[in-house]
Amino acid sequence: MAEDLLDLENHCVELLAERGVTLDDIADCARYLQADYHVDLTSEELLESVHAVLSKREVQYAVMTGIALDKAAEEGRLGDKDLIALMMSDAPLFGADEVLAYGICNTYGSIALTNFGFIDKKKYGIIRKLNRAGKNTGHCNTFIDDIVGAIAASAASRFAHRWVRDVDEEEH
Amino acid sequence: MAEDLLDLENHCVELLAERGVTLDDIADCARYLQADYHVDLTSEELLESVHAVLSKREVQYAVMTGIALDKAAEEGRLGDKDLIALMMSDAPLFGADEVLAYGICNTYGSIALTNFGFIDKKKYGIIRKLNRAGKNTGHCNTFIDDIVGAIAASAASRFAHRWVRDVDEEEH
Amino acid sequence: MAEDLLDLENHCVELLAERGVTLDDIADCARYLQADYHVDLTSEELLESVHAVLSKREVQYAVMTGIALDKAAEEGRLGDKDLIALMMSDAPLFGADEVLAYGICNTYGSIALTNFGFIDKKKYGIIRKLNRAGKNTGHCNTFIDDIVGAIAASAASRFAHRWVRDVDEEEH
Amino acid sequence: MAEDLLDLENHCVELLAERGVTLDDIADCARYLQADYHVDLTSEELLESVHAVLSKREVQYAVMTGIALDKAAEEGRLGDKDLIALMMSDAPLFGADEVLAYGICNTYGSIALTNFGFIDKKKYGIIRKLNRAGKNTGHCNTFIDDIVGAIAASAASRFAHRWVRDVDEEEH
Repeated sequence: MAEDLLDLENHCVELLAERGVTLDDIADCARYLQADYHVDLTSEELLESVHAVLSKREVQYAVMTGIALDKAAEEGRLGDKDLIALMMSDAPLFGADEVLAYGICNTYGSIALTNFGFIDKKKYGIIRKLNRAGKNTGHCNTFIDDIVGAIAASAASRFAHRWVRDVDEEEH
Repeated sequence: MAEDLLDLENHCVELLAERGVTLDDIADCARYLQADYHVDLTSEELLESVHAVLSKREVQYAVMTGIALDKAAEEGRLGDKDLIALMMSDAPLFGADEVLAYGICNTYGSIALTNFGFIDKKKYGIIRKLNRAGKNTGHCNTFIDDIVGAIAASAASRFAHRWVRDVDEEEH
Repeated sequence: MAEDLLDLENHCVELLAERGVTLDDIADCARYLQADYHVDLTSEELLESVHAVLSKREVQYAVMTGIALDKAAEEGRLGDKDLIALMMSDAPLFGADEVLAYGICNTYGSIALTNFGFIDKKKYGIIRKLNRAGKNTGHCNTFIDDIVGAIAASAASRFAHRWVRDVDEEEH
Repeated sequence: MAEDLLDLENHCVELLAERGVTLDDIADCARYLQADYHVDLTSEELLESVHAVLSKREVQYAVMTGIALDKAAEEGRLGDKDLIALMMSDAPLFGADEVLAYGICNTYGSIALTNFGFIDKKKYGIIRKLNRAGKNTGHCNTFIDDIVGAIAASAASRFAHRWVRDVDEEEH
């Protein structure tokens, strides 16, 4: 069993890839969330923050739980028929997907939470792609789009806090 | 002292009015949040939900606390110079304003939270007006724009849940 | 498929029973949380609040999701071996279980959240029983103990708010 | 104006001291929260985590906001008579104090939130002292007891995550 944090980070990167999500996709969402404040920012500059978010234990557990739910629903292994029906149609008021995503944002403060709310409704980039591919198609992306949004929102929040801190330090 | 919920609701409506916010302004924000799902919805149809949100004790207390902070900062009664400077400039990473707003959303579930994140970044309608009027102008709108966003987000969420429930009931 | 709220409430009551939890067990936890404030309160008086909590859509979805995860882990249907190992040992820093429980509390305000934190650490009544039976025993109770705690915490919070409101109304 | 993080940390330490709270008091609360898992732990070992929590911008802003509210209520500078009455009596369902405290926990994940709920109800050590001294006494400790609880809960959570990580690393 992969017990340590680095092994689990790799495990999560593989799970995301298996569901069609690269870390560059997530960094691009994070960049989008910072675009109003930093016009010239590139996805590459946010990739470090995406890695930092994914190195946290609580984030890794949320990623594993959400993707396991999507896969089990899709492959008919989840047991509860009502729950499977809700997840396969990505019912808009389901809510458990957003709640699990908050568990990721909850380690990056209030700005991460507002960032998540914004990108969850805006459905930018890979999030839009996942969302469209998971509505009554046989694929289940109910949890993964929110997980991707939450990692991007947390990475953007981490970047913003560090940027302000660096400016503070230069000024003193 | 106004102890009961109805008195406190009136007290909150007066506080909001004093800061330039009508319940119609809030209902218009709630309508905006539902516009993707219900194109023809009018603000009037969301006014009942705005009232329902404002009738909750925990919402009333958050409204009173946030507006008291804005007014005390603006009028130099808040004591802490560093805090006053942060609030008068509406520092983007302050965060306590969003946190107090979550206290409002926290009684309306996960959809209210994502709605809040969206409108907080989008700054629609009265929220944009408040935000602009509260940045280094001598006026302090640091808390009130988030409070308005949270009431609108909660009202939109309440409306969405009721609408789905009514459809469910008609179908059975 | 059970689509309406009443059907889903019955579905959740059955799922809870199947995992060894009755509504009386939950009402007893809610009573315990109110015991400091209302010494003579009986579980029966809190049963109405437990039903009210379970009638909410978002609560029902959280109950279904959590129990599906526990059962799928226990029966080896969850797919991810690392995740199954974490859940079968009820790893103390897993966190996704508490996060899903917050989704329940998030519809009953800040008092529900503190109530949940308290009973989650105190592990009163059925929660203690579930917790003990789910650590390296072949049974998985990782999510259900937190779900039960969150329903009890929400029911206690709902009761407290109503009690204060009724006192307010009598006094005016 | 104290703009950088170190200055603001010192500012917060002074504000806490002025209200009768030392960092040792907070470390003792954090120790209490970890006592079930680490019997021999001393407060000194948790002091580093208390400092780490207090070095975060979002925590500093919450500390400043909460203490400013308590002081303004106590000294009659808060303006809103209904709000002052609620705060001077430390009304049990007020809720805004817990919400602001969640803003602190929100940067340390779900374990911080449950820790906070537990110590908020248990009222250990300095928290009990603050709570008693702030009920209809002319002193207002409505926000500070929750702030202290949230810093302690976050420090305990940080310690727990680091301890598990260090064990993981030794084993590999």
